[in-house]
Amino acid sequence: MTAAGDTALIALDWGTTSARAYRMRRDGALIDQRHAALGVQHVRPGEFAQALGALLGDWSALPVPRLACGMIGSRQGWIEAPYSRCPVALQALAAATVRTPEGEVAIVGGLTCVDDTGVPDVLRGEETQVAGLPDDALDAALVIQPGTHSKWTAVANHAIAGFSTYMTGELYAVLREHSILGRLLAKGLFDDAAFARGVDAGLQAPAGALPHQLFAARTLALFDALTPAGAGDYLSGLLIGHEIAHGRAWAARHASAAASTWLVGDDALCDRYARALAQAGVATLRGPADAAARGLWRLARLSGMVV
Amino acid sequence: MTAAGDTALIALDWGTTSARAYRMRRDGALIDQRHAALGVQHVRPGEFAQALGALLGDWSALPVPRLACGMIGSRQGWIEAPYSRCPVALQALAAATVRTPEGEVAIVGGLTCVDDTGVPDVLRGEETQVAGLPDDALDAALVIQPGTHSKWTAVANHAIAGFSTYMTGELYAVLREHSILGRLLAKGLFDDAAFARGVDAGLQAPAGALPHQLFAARTLALFDALTPAGAGDYLSGLLIGHEIAHGRAWAARHASAAASTWLVGDDALCDRYARALAQAGVATLRGPADAAARGLWRLARLSGMVV
Repeated sequence: MTAAGDTALIALDWGTTSARAYRMRRDGALIDQRHAALGVQHVRPGEFAQALGALLGDWSALPVPRLACGMIGSRQGWIEAPYSRCPVALQALAAATVRTPEGEVAIVGGLTCVDDTGVPDVLRGEETQVAGLPDDALDAALVIQPGTHSKWTAVANHAIAGFSTYMTGELYAVLREHSILGRLLAKGLFDDAAFARGVDAGLQAPAGALPHQLFAARTLALFDALTPAGAGDYLSGLLIGHEIAHGRAWAARHASAAASTWLVGDDALCDRYARALAQAGVATLRGPADAAARGLWRLARLSGMVV
Repeated sequence: MTAAGDTALIALDWGTTSARAYRMRRDGALIDQRHAALGVQHVRPGEFAQALGALLGDWSALPVPRLACGMIGSRQGWIEAPYSRCPVALQALAAATVRTPEGEVAIVGGLTCVDDTGVPDVLRGEETQVAGLPDDALDAALVIQPGTHSKWTAVANHAIAGFSTYMTGELYAVLREHSILGRLLAKGLFDDAAFARGVDAGLQAPAGALPHQLFAARTLALFDALTPAGAGDYLSGLLIGHEIAHGRAWAARHASAAASTWLVGDDALCDRYARALAQAGVATLRGPADAAARGLWRLARLSGMVV
C-alpha cells in the first residue's frame, strides 16, 4: 500500500466502450488502476461527473490533477477538445488541453491531418499512446496501432508529423460476420501458413485488387485450399497485407529514414502485425502495455500539471 | 395469341432467389415469359420437379425441349452440372449440359478458371448471358456483368477465354448496412459529383489503399465534404473504381485488343458502370435485357436441341 500523498496525477484513458483510471506517483510510476464499463457511449449527456465519481471511488478525494484522453474529448463526450492540425509538437499538444466546465478534468485533444489525396484524417486517443513511448523513441519513430481503425503515425523530434488511418479491423469484422465469406469461416487455432499466404497476397496485390481477392478467398475455401479456420486467418492476413502495402509507401514519404517501427496495442493483434511486417522485411519493437498512462504522464509533465 | 405449336424451346433462367421461364418460337423470338419465387434456396431437395410444374403451369404439356441455366445446376440445385475449365467454346458448353434424372430439363454447366495468382475462380449462369450477346459480338468481346459478385469475361471466336470476379456489390452492401460508414449514409437522389469523385479515387488508388480510403470516406462525410446521400454514392464509386482499375489491367492481358466492352445486367447498375467506365476512358455497349433467354436459345441451337 502506497500512501495517498505519493499520488501526483490521476490519468484517465476514457474511450467509447470503457474508462480506465491510473493513479501515478511523483516519479511517474503506476501505483494502481481502476476500470469501469463507463465508456462515452454508456454515459448520458450531463452525467459525466457522476460517471467519473463512480470510476474513481475514494480516489475522488485526492487533491491531484486529472488528465484524460480519448473519446471523452469528442463531440459525444464530456466536452469537445478540438483537433490540432499536424505537425504538432507534443509540447503543443500538452498546452492545448481543454477543461470540463467545473474543472474536474483536463482533456487532451485529437489530431487531424490531410492525406496525400487531400482528404482529411482524424485520430483521438492514439496521440497519447504515442506520447507514451520511451523518450529516445520520440526522436524518430513510425508507430503502428492495429485495431478497428489502425493508425500509422510518424514521429520526429518529439512532434507528430502526420498519420494515416486504415479501416482494417472493421472491414475484417463486417466481412466475417455479414458476408458470404463468413459462412465459410470457423474459429480455430491460429493457422500460421494461411495467414502468411494472405499477407503475401495483400503485399503483392496490384492496384484495385481487393474486391477480386475477397472473392478469391471464398473460392480457396470452396476448393479446399484453405480449411474453415485457415480461411479466417487468410482473410485477416490479406487485409493486414493491404494495410502494410499502403502504410509502407505512406511511411516512406512521411516518416524519417532513421525511424524505428513500433507496435502499440492489443498483444495478440500486435503479434499478427509483427509477423506480417516481418514478412514485408520490417523489424518491429513493442510499445509498453500501459502506453496511454505513460503518455498522459508525459503530457502532464509537458503542460506543467505535474512537476 | 400464338399457337402452342409455334413453341420450339422452353428456356429457364433458374437462380438462387427466383426462376424465370421463357417460351421461344422457332425463329428464336420470345413469345411469353413466366416467373416465380422458386429460386434454389426456396425449393427443398426432391421437390424441383414439382417447382418446375408450378413455374410452367400449362406450358408443362408442351412437347418441346427445356434448357436451364443458373444455380439450378449447382450442388444445392436439382442436379450438379460440372464446371468447364476455360477456355471453353460455346459449342463445347452446349455439348456439356446435364439432364435431370427423369429427363425433365437439361442444365448448362458453370465455368472455372485460374486467376493470375493461381487462385481458382468460378461462375454459373453468367456464361449463358454472355452467350446471349449478338452473334458478331462473340468474335471479340469484354463482357462486364455488375452485381453482388461482378464478372468480367473475355470472349474470342465464340469461346470464353477467361473471367475475373469482384465482390464489389456485396462489399458495398455489408459496409453500408453494418459498418460505421452506414451510419453516415442516407438514401437520396443519385449524386453524380460524389459518385464521380469516388470513381476517381478508386481509379487512382495505389496498391493496398482501400482500407485507408474507406476511413477517408467517413471523414469526408464527417467534415461535410459529402452529403449523407452523396457519401453512399462516393462509396459506390470508390468500390466500382477499384473493380475497374483491376479489371482493365486484367482485360489488357486476357481480352482481345479488338474487343468491344459490353455491360449486361440490371439497368440502374449498368448505368453506374457505364459512367464509371467512361470516366476511365472506356466506351461501352449495352447487352440485351433478355440476355439469358437469348443465350439459352443459342446454346440449344448449338447442342442440336432445336434446329
